[in-house]
Amino acid sequence: MHLNDLSTPCALVDLEQLERNARRIADKARRLGVRLRPHVKTHKCVEIARIQTDLHFGGVTVSTLAEAHAFAAAGFTDITYAVPIAPQRIAEAADLHREIDALNILVDHPETARAVDELASSRGLTLPVFLEIDCGGGRSGIRSDDERVEQLARRLAEAEAIDFRGLLTHAGHAYRVRSRREAFEVACEERNLMTAIAAQLRDLGIPVPELSVGSTPGMRAIDDLTGVSEVRPGNYAFYDAFQAAIGSCELDEVAFSVLATVVSVQPDYGRAVVDAGALALSRDPGPVHVDPYCGFGRPVAVEDLHPLPGLQLTALSQEHGTLGGPGVAALRPGTRLRILPNHSCLAAACFDRYHVLRGAEVIDEWHPVRGW
Amino acid sequence: MHLNDLSTPCALVDLEQLERNARRIADKARRLGVRLRPHVKTHKCVEIARIQTDLHFGGVTVSTLAEAHAFAAAGFTDITYAVPIAPQRIAEAADLHREIDALNILVDHPETARAVDELASSRGLTLPVFLEIDCGGGRSGIRSDDERVEQLARRLAEAEAIDFRGLLTHAGHAYRVRSRREAFEVACEERNLMTAIAAQLRDLGIPVPELSVGSTPGMRAIDDLTGVSEVRPGNYAFYDAFQAAIGSCELDEVAFSVLATVVSVQPDYGRAVVDAGALALSRDPGPVHVDPYCGFGRPVAVEDLHPLPGLQLTALSQEHGTLGGPGVAALRPGTRLRILPNHSCLAAACFDRYHVLRGAEVIDEWHPVRGW
Repeated sequence: MHLNDLSTPCALVDLEQLERNARRIADKARRLGVRLRPHVKTHKCVEIARIQTDLHFGGVTVSTLAEAHAFAAAGFTDITYAVPIAPQRIAEAADLHREIDALNILVDHPETARAVDELASSRGLTLPVFLEIDCGGGRSGIRSDDERVEQLARRLAEAEAIDFRGLLTHAGHAYRVRSRREAFEVACEERNLMTAIAAQLRDLGIPVPELSVGSTPGMRAIDDLTGVSEVRPGNYAFYDAFQAAIGSCELDEVAFSVLATVVSVQPDYGRAVVDAGALALSRDPGPVHVDPYCGFGRPVAVEDLHPLPGLQLTALSQEHGTLGGPGVAALRPGTRLRILPNHSCLAAACFDRYHVLRGAEVIDEWHPVRGW
Repeated sequence: MHLNDLSTPCALVDLEQLERNARRIADKARRLGVRLRPHVKTHKCVEIARIQTDLHFGGVTVSTLAEAHAFAAAGFTDITYAVPIAPQRIAEAADLHREIDALNILVDHPETARAVDELASSRGLTLPVFLEIDCGGGRSGIRSDDERVEQLARRLAEAEAIDFRGLLTHAGHAYRVRSRREAFEVACEERNLMTAIAAQLRDLGIPVPELSVGSTPGMRAIDDLTGVSEVRPGNYAFYDAFQAAIGSCELDEVAFSVLATVVSVQPDYGRAVVDAGALALSRDPGPVHVDPYCGFGRPVAVEDLHPLPGLQLTALSQEHGTLGGPGVAALRPGTRLRILPNHSCLAAACFDRYHVLRGAEVIDEWHPVRGW
């Protein structure tokens, strides 16, 4: 089937570009001497994770327990659930852990640590736990300069029913950079903070088996990960308009796009409408800190993915994507185009299936996991 | 089952509030002498559409052909697909039209009009078509002051295989107002423009059987719809934090919420994290034109839905919702709260099921339509 025979809006994955993206990061991880545990939240798709983990140890990172269940069912046996676990779901995680080699969970609070220890103990289990550190992203995790890092690390290391695996961080501020140079600085700081904390803890007699770091901007920029044991980038499978704007990739490396059809054209008012709205692209505002006029995604040509001149995706409502600019004069009702999303993780989650392309041929259909 | 037994994040629909919301608009439509054709895109759920259409003629509005198929299969026989149709999908619409009383489609371009006429003619059908007018929203539709309104209306009225149903508009700028007073002005302008165009066309001998208008802000604000034949509000089934901010509803009328669990608390840094992120709430920015500090949704108490003091949903990433403010000191890992979304249409679409509540009891589970 040719991609023009697909009904729109729909999600397209360019297989050859995806494979190139995967290989490049896999090679780099090997070169830097770290294990690669890709974050599958970007695509939630076992076929893609198999490509990403090829020639690596096979571990993956997930963002929901639903992903953990689905990837375990598909044969992935070493999974890190990289969101602090809700106390109400520890039992579910423990049950899944028993079925595979390891479901590693995250803790950043003493009450959760106690709840994990009690639950595991009551079931005669030992649960692998990472302590989440906030190295500057300002989301979850204990701040790297907080004295409670030591207290909680000690507590986890001494807990009878916990296998303290080490420290995990995600430099969320890698998404606030403006260039690969700035991403490099954030990634170096992430590495330096984490290796320094690990050294302090080890000096205090607390074993820290692993240091897990990573983001796609950081992994593209960094050149030395001495002291780090594993990296967890995720977006690099697909990339997106945001990553291109901050220098993590070139626009032609983006492997995920949304195929859309023009349904309304009013050249005299300088606008047109495509059938891909907020439910097909998400309302992610994109790299406004780098390009205030980035719009809600990059319209590109169907066949060769070159950016369409004079066209911006200026507004999204639920099922309408409004295009503005002089380029609308070249559009007709029925014209097809592709949109490189601002944020491929959120756009991909809009779809129940990905159409897998080799060139312009649709060669497969893959189904992402949904829910929590 | 009590709502606290649900796994999070999940979607909650308060049945009694939904019924009150539906009844109020249904009563008002009758009082104003217009037919009510609710837009089901907000919930995409046949059970809710049945409540909304109770004691009305049973017509609904949809935003995708997938919704049209699902609602037709559930027994809805008069459906308006309120996005200009893509030429590639006219045949599919024609097939569905043949199975029910009416699938009304939208056209705003002469090329699409010709394609509809040709397709319908080739199948020996007559397809019901509305001409979409842009009354100020600036999205799809021919602008109300454009001379091509007359040309296209005449073309549709004269086409052999088209049943020209009249004019349809959606005052999208009703979402840019700051108060019910402004929404009233927009709704009056919408009505006045549409009745004026219809009068002009009728003077020119072009029959205009119907005038279809409507939005939730407009329907709450307007008090006279003389000349209008039907209204298509949709959001009023659920409402949301946005509608409350612009005066379309009170906060305690919101019937849709997302149940979330606190997974991280750092009171010393004035923040906490819940397990409802961008994939559970959407990245809709909310009523920033009225309240720049609105955040990404309103945290409210689980039981009585009162706004939680000193808590703001300051940031969303894929599966993390970051709470800020002094209220985080009252939170613990495992604390439950509900979030009234900024935009219930986009948040509801994040979920494969709605848990239906009567008070705090979960009494049913409903499944929205997905896809296109």
